[in-house]
Amino acid sequence: MKYVSFSTKGGALGFGRLNGDVITDLSGQAADLKTAISAGTLASLHSDTTIALADVTLAPVIPNPDKVFCVGHNYETHRQETGRAATEHPSIFVRFADSLSGHNQPIVMPKVSTQLDFEGELAVIIGKGGRYISEQDAMSHVAGYACFNDASVRDWQWHTRQFTPGKNFPTTGPFGPYMVTPDEAGDLSEINVTTRLNDDIVQQQPIGDMIFPIATVIAYISSFTPLKPGDVIASGTPGGVGAKRTPPLWMKPGDSVSVEIGPMGKLINTITAE
Amino acid sequence: MKYVSFSTKGGALGFGRLNGDVITDLSGQAADLKTAISAGTLASLHSDTTIALADVTLAPVIPNPDKVFCVGHNYETHRQETGRAATEHPSIFVRFADSLSGHNQPIVMPKVSTQLDFEGELAVIIGKGGRYISEQDAMSHVAGYACFNDASVRDWQWHTRQFTPGKNFPTTGPFGPYMVTPDEAGDLSEINVTTRLNDDIVQQQPIGDMIFPIATVIAYISSFTPLKPGDVIASGTPGGVGAKRTPPLWMKPGDSVSVEIGPMGKLINTITAE
Repeated sequence: MKYVSFSTKGGALGFGRLNGDVITDLSGQAADLKTAISAGTLASLHSDTTIALADVTLAPVIPNPDKVFCVGHNYETHRQETGRAATEHPSIFVRFADSLSGHNQPIVMPKVSTQLDFEGELAVIIGKGGRYISEQDAMSHVAGYACFNDASVRDWQWHTRQFTPGKNFPTTGPFGPYMVTPDEAGDLSEINVTTRLNDDIVQQQPIGDMIFPIATVIAYISSFTPLKPGDVIASGTPGGVGAKRTPPLWMKPGDSVSVEIGPMGKLINTITAE
Repeated sequence: MKYVSFSTKGGALGFGRLNGDVITDLSGQAADLKTAISAGTLASLHSDTTIALADVTLAPVIPNPDKVFCVGHNYETHRQETGRAATEHPSIFVRFADSLSGHNQPIVMPKVSTQLDFEGELAVIIGKGGRYISEQDAMSHVAGYACFNDASVRDWQWHTRQFTPGKNFPTTGPFGPYMVTPDEAGDLSEINVTTRLNDDIVQQQPIGDMIFPIATVIAYISSFTPLKPGDVIASGTPGGVGAKRTPPLWMKPGDSVSVEIGPMGKLINTITAE
């Protein structure tokens, strides 16, 4: 099944189940999608109210996660193009929730930089929280998957070794269009993460090429911090980022960028100037 | 004035104004200290209910900040002992709120490490939010100051270049005992940050020695992410950390560690095993 968070004209944030172009509006059933995931009742929620997908503005799949983790250099192609040494553990950095954005929403290129880059990724949404989750159990903690664009302001990312500044400008974390539950997503290993800039394919690699698979990343993160329902893990980007091209390929106002991942659909955003 | 967040026996979290050993209980006046700061009415809140400081458990000064930033290598002594290159901008990493702890609460040494280190720091609590705050205006955005111990699980911090794992184990961010407003804190430049491990002074340096002063850090952070009332900035630690000693000096169960900063008082915590 697919789930979305959305707002209607002048309305508050809601959530629902998506069937084709129609949303079953579940907003009355729980405070938000995160709360419904946490309650473990998502699949059984029911409503007779529907809204056309065309009539809503999609929000980030989880608009209010407690924690958003990103994995650095988790595909060998990207690790090599960045010149990073191989590590025994995943590299984890943090996004604040207010850096997230929804499908079809603008990515605002900050006025303090011209180095805005794309990073197509698979986002993992945690369904069941926990600490010291084992790799064996990790996949049972997943509520679903979505496309993610870990758009990066490279000069700010590289001010120091800590990536925080370049990964937290508002709107630079598009996340959607919807969450797909694991049963519907199926086996992900052969499915490509495909990033397009103005229809040119700029990144494309199967999820099975990850250096640290999703279960390993969940187990690792839950060793140092408790995971909660609705937490998000952007699982890393394949090679091909704009910064490592010659000459560099930066996104600029007017550009359209998309991240497409098989059953997770296609996340499209346009760059605007601040 | 001084403010605390606290819980009473079996009671919910509250907050109040501290005068000597007596708390004026302001819990009924706003949802929490962060909300009261945000409303801008903190100084005018009044209550006839008092509680003895001895009868409460102190929580982190702000138990529920939206964002907790830490500044890396912000004293020349610490930058040199870590062998980091000088940078033009502050190094910023992130703590989750659930890694914070209160005065007199245990720091739990995780079972997955033996490399638990101290980092005494001045915490800055944001009073007025904003984006693109200028250095000139930055100090008017400060609600107050408190002691902070950015206790670090060094092996996990150094798994990769991103510090996230080593800085987010639960209870490793003691923050208190109380917030002191800027008028009462006065000029901070000559005031020492003093860290003691079992009564031995292990770090001691005046706040004026910071490489990037508080105003610069606030301006920098607000360039890439909006600051909100109640956000916390742990402003960096002086030289002397245990990891850079020969042999290394790790904290262990039973140890007492404190951070003392003039008018901000003394934050004391004991290490316990997980």
